[in-house]
Amino acid sequence: MAAARGIRFYYDLISQPCRALYIFLEQTKIPHQKCPTALRKWEHTTPEFLRTVNRFGKLPAIVEEESGFKLAESIAILRYLSREHSVPDHWYPRDSRRRARVDEYLEWQHSNTRLHCAGYVRYVWRGPLRGEAVERQVAERLRLEMIACLDFIESNLLREDVPFIAGQDISIADLVAACEVEQPKLTGYDARVGRPKMTAWLQRVKEFTHPDYEAAHKVMLRFAPTVA
Amino acid sequence: MAAARGIRFYYDLISQPCRALYIFLEQTKIPHQKCPTALRKWEHTTPEFLRTVNRFGKLPAIVEEESGFKLAESIAILRYLSREHSVPDHWYPRDSRRRARVDEYLEWQHSNTRLHCAGYVRYVWRGPLRGEAVERQVAERLRLEMIACLDFIESNLLREDVPFIAGQDISIADLVAACEVEQPKLTGYDARVGRPKMTAWLQRVKEFTHPDYEAAHKVMLRFAPTVA
Repeated sequence: MAAARGIRFYYDLISQPCRALYIFLEQTKIPHQKCPTALRKWEHTTPEFLRTVNRFGKLPAIVEEESGFKLAESIAILRYLSREHSVPDHWYPRDSRRRARVDEYLEWQHSNTRLHCAGYVRYVWRGPLRGEAVERQVAERLRLEMIACLDFIESNLLREDVPFIAGQDISIADLVAACEVEQPKLTGYDARVGRPKMTAWLQRVKEFTHPDYEAAHKVMLRFAPTVA
Repeated sequence: MAAARGIRFYYDLISQPCRALYIFLEQTKIPHQKCPTALRKWEHTTPEFLRTVNRFGKLPAIVEEESGFKLAESIAILRYLSREHSVPDHWYPRDSRRRARVDEYLEWQHSNTRLHCAGYVRYVWRGPLRGEAVERQVAERLRLEMIACLDFIESNLLREDVPFIAGQDISIADLVAACEVEQPKLTGYDARVGRPKMTAWLQRVKEFTHPDYEAAHKVMLRFAPTVA
């Protein structure tokens, strides 16, 4: 089945959701053709891209080779590929309650981990690259919001007796969360410092997905002031 | 099955995701006990609520009567209930590609419809209720971001030949989208004005879910300067 269902995968490894999907595709060996698309060159907003790949003008996106079916939004893609290909159950469990727990994090993170980590990096790191000014007060407010969110994850979501976000096994929630939490390294902020549970969890995700995790983060870490 | 799987439903109808879930529960007749929880009284953040209902301290949330299983995040709940109860297929289609199209909107909206509509309402309407100052320049920026997002939906997501967001049939994507798009009415902003496709689509959603749509929005519209 999988052989006939190859996809074209449009991504840029500077983007957290792209990295999560990259790792998933490598881990599950779903046949795919890599189509690197440079965000810094606005390749994701050309009329051609909007028409033939993703009308939302965002990355990542996939196009099925055979059917031409187009799909955007990393989490929608992760769910779709988990259904369409035979991938190990732990990534997106068939058990209804375990699946609900994975979904709960994936929905929660949009207005929390993603909003705050990506929001801070966008303002402090990407903005200046595009010639935008940084106001110290705004940067500090965004930094505190990010810290509060990461502290909440440390205190409320991660547990010493539960190795992964949604339970005993690694799932797509861990990929999405880990790639997001790595992003502030671009600003020199390391989410692991002072957070022992987060440190141990990130290490587990990295080890489980070795060497794909490192491959996904190589480009990003090249831009980070302190390479971890 | 359903009778033995009743849930307790914690909600406040001033909240868009709560209204979407409220309409879904009424439409599908999933047995549930209504547990109104007042956001304005911070009832969603009491130690009791965090411990027994939702550790995230948010609404909506559900607790299964029999099993005690707790679940947060409206979209995770909508998916879970669609699996666990026998609900009409159109709400969350079993067909993989149709489901992916519903998921695509549901993931996209977090950083778009929800971020911008809720963000504007929070700053301009809820902030002052809590004694927070409103800076004209910030309000105007948020308003323009909301307008750009609503215009994108009008031009790119809604189509004259496709009655609902994800295709020919109404789905949970429409409930989530419609409840969000109604929210700016609290500030006197009507998303339908100048947007004929949005006007027609909202009317279809309202008619399909009558009278639950009206019941869900009654409380909110009482606070809106121009009752529509």
